[in-house]
Amino acid sequence: MKNVLLFGSGRSTSSLIKYLLERTETHQFKLYIADQSIVSIQAKIADNPNAFAVSLDLNNDTERTKLIEKADVVISMMPAFLHPIIAADCLTYGKHLVTASYISNELKEMDAEVKAKGLIFMNECGLDPGIDHMSAMKVLDEIREKGGNPVHFESFCGGLVAPESDDNVWKYKFSWNPRNVVVAGQGGAAKFLQQGTYKYIPYQRIFKRTEFLEIEGFGRFEAYANRDSLGYREAYGLEKAHTIYRGTMRRVGFSRAWNMLVQLGVTDDTYTIEDSENMSYREFINSFLYYHPTDSVEVKFRLTLNVEQDDTVWDKFVALDLFNNDKKVGLKNATPAQVMEKILAEKWTLQPDDKDMIVMYHKFGYTMPNVAETLQIDATMVCLGEDAVLTGMAKTVGLPVGIITLKILNGEITTPGVQMPITKEVYEPVLKELETFGIIFQEKEVPYDGGM
Amino acid sequence: MKNVLLFGSGRSTSSLIKYLLERTETHQFKLYIADQSIVSIQAKIADNPNAFAVSLDLNNDTERTKLIEKADVVISMMPAFLHPIIAADCLTYGKHLVTASYISNELKEMDAEVKAKGLIFMNECGLDPGIDHMSAMKVLDEIREKGGNPVHFESFCGGLVAPESDDNVWKYKFSWNPRNVVVAGQGGAAKFLQQGTYKYIPYQRIFKRTEFLEIEGFGRFEAYANRDSLGYREAYGLEKAHTIYRGTMRRVGFSRAWNMLVQLGVTDDTYTIEDSENMSYREFINSFLYYHPTDSVEVKFRLTLNVEQDDTVWDKFVALDLFNNDKKVGLKNATPAQVMEKILAEKWTLQPDDKDMIVMYHKFGYTMPNVAETLQIDATMVCLGEDAVLTGMAKTVGLPVGIITLKILNGEITTPGVQMPITKEVYEPVLKELETFGIIFQEKEVPYDGGM
Repeated sequence: MKNVLLFGSGRSTSSLIKYLLERTETHQFKLYIADQSIVSIQAKIADNPNAFAVSLDLNNDTERTKLIEKADVVISMMPAFLHPIIAADCLTYGKHLVTASYISNELKEMDAEVKAKGLIFMNECGLDPGIDHMSAMKVLDEIREKGGNPVHFESFCGGLVAPESDDNVWKYKFSWNPRNVVVAGQGGAAKFLQQGTYKYIPYQRIFKRTEFLEIEGFGRFEAYANRDSLGYREAYGLEKAHTIYRGTMRRVGFSRAWNMLVQLGVTDDTYTIEDSENMSYREFINSFLYYHPTDSVEVKFRLTLNVEQDDTVWDKFVALDLFNNDKKVGLKNATPAQVMEKILAEKWTLQPDDKDMIVMYHKFGYTMPNVAETLQIDATMVCLGEDAVLTGMAKTVGLPVGIITLKILNGEITTPGVQMPITKEVYEPVLKELETFGIIFQEKEVPYDGGM
Repeated sequence: MKNVLLFGSGRSTSSLIKYLLERTETHQFKLYIADQSIVSIQAKIADNPNAFAVSLDLNNDTERTKLIEKADVVISMMPAFLHPIIAADCLTYGKHLVTASYISNELKEMDAEVKAKGLIFMNECGLDPGIDHMSAMKVLDEIREKGGNPVHFESFCGGLVAPESDDNVWKYKFSWNPRNVVVAGQGGAAKFLQQGTYKYIPYQRIFKRTEFLEIEGFGRFEAYANRDSLGYREAYGLEKAHTIYRGTMRRVGFSRAWNMLVQLGVTDDTYTIEDSENMSYREFINSFLYYHPTDSVEVKFRLTLNVEQDDTVWDKFVALDLFNNDKKVGLKNATPAQVMEKILAEKWTLQPDDKDMIVMYHKFGYTMPNVAETLQIDATMVCLGEDAVLTGMAKTVGLPVGIITLKILNGEITTPGVQMPITKEVYEPVLKELETFGIIFQEKEVPYDGGM
């Protein structure tokens, strides 16, 4: 029997572990799941005789390399900064590696050696990055195969809440790392290409410059620009495209309200608040408002952010309990972003029966020889979660990782190198298997709408 | 004869060098001025037999230490990150050191050794930091000496243009490093204390939350918050104050217009623009605006920033030539901030006969035993430049450095340690000599206005 070694058992691995556990017999492999704490893993593997939980300190070189040495394929679902350690071992001991993270420079530099040893280091295998690559490249390759020339590419993804569980005024709940939601858009301007012109949007305007999108059967969404839309221009072969834009989807109204929090400064993660521990939520908000001897925090908030009396955006802030003077922050030396994460988690955490929703939408504009007008293909995917554990997020992140792992294990994916899933060898079988899990892209020709 | 060694001969050293050159005979010292290029120094020292220009690469340890070894007092007017190298040598060879920069952690750590060797490392000796410390501590000490308790401290400083040279619609010209003006307010939220509450203002609101100030004889100004107003709470003995606020002064209207540039994103210094070299100013601005097939850049700019047709703020942008399609940026791989610095320098550079203006204003609120109401002292200083070389900025930065240097040389300032000029031993004689150069604080008791 072969061995698959999975590092990490966090929130996003529930579907991945389920997928692998269900296939140890049929695919004849043993599954080792290594993490610092193995209590939750032991419950998951229960009575599977081919699965083993291993308690591991990743910094213990002896233990880590011993594990990697006996593996055939290694999966790392650890935080991205830990991948280089694991990748170095995989290189030393000649093991394939699968991750859901962006290819780091450290990994990129291993490419020649990885190829020389005939290894596959497949990264960006989750949802975004991951399914976005695969589903986009499938359509782009089809366009090119029929002689077309892609000139316009827009791509949107959102981790949202399913309509049946959509019961708060923000129409949003956390289905992945809340911290990343709070600091979204920080750390550099958004950059994209529109009708041949490079466009830049600073953090302070990202949530103001949104686009509307309609997804059949699911209504209207809005999208704000991702940080760098041009990263995949080369990988996707879009050097001649005049428009390349990637965005994050939210339900309509989210971004305008979120922008007010950005303007206030409560999403800042670069400094700590004085005496954050003993502050009430109300005092926290007040520290971002001007001083006034008699105006209430609510009045100052409205005046500062120009919230009219009858503006429904107001309900969103009240719903977060931002003006509550009894609730204490209770976090020592916290940054504003950390305080907000705590406040939001109280309202935006998926309840056990809640279902989340993943939406992905690509728009491809392309030209054909001897056709005057630009043509367009839309590709849409919606994936609902089953509950707060087997979320749509866990499915769309974990299943492609699991599928790719087994296809490497079985020799169905063979091209070596440090790579992402943009070749037909990878995306074709993976997308096909994803369809059996309900992760299906609806593709259709529509009239070219000219874009954003 | 003793020796004074000055590192650096940049823009802000003109008055310092003049001050020192005029005193080599009366104070019996030789002046060595070291910099990479000495052409401009040679012209300045002309026929002074006690002054010498030394061409120096600061990274050349042998040359640098040889110079320091024969000095009695070393002045560093180099960029602040170079001070630790020079300070380490001063410690090794037992030399006093004077700088106009903030005390870095590296310097702070030298304090015990500096004291043990009986050396004086006097930092923050320029305008701000420098004259602000001295003039504030003088009043604070006076308040305490008469039994008062300072509870409220506001301090404002601006490097502006003299009324007679105030001929552009921004009412602003560069009198110091233009780059620092473009990136002002970046790198962290402004933080201050107001009526007992900590307040934080993020970059995206700093230029929106301004205060008005009147300076007798010079009219109205506005001020935006400096990054950290609490840095001197301890040094100034203001632990019990309920309000501590430091701000930067501009003429009224500057900040609202500048905020629009901030909102647009053109002051960002964290990434480079694609093909910045070949862009026109108009194309540069357009890259921060939404795409539209027919709207002009002007219309998009107005719509994006809500500039009404009759709003005079519009004139400020037109005056910068922002919409000029013939002027090229001409800078390779430039950040938006670098492009803006170039655009602004064309309009905001002091012309040879232009005079700049330094304004400093402190407000002290204090209580007295057995006096019911809070009392207030205002201290105001205005210093005009003579021309574009002997600027008010160069005078207020350079003269206190020169005065302190000679007072250390002559043994009038003796207390050892890594310090800033907040003791009476330093501020009293220095402020007195500054008055002979027209740098005079007008202090007066006024009714307490309650503050910002």
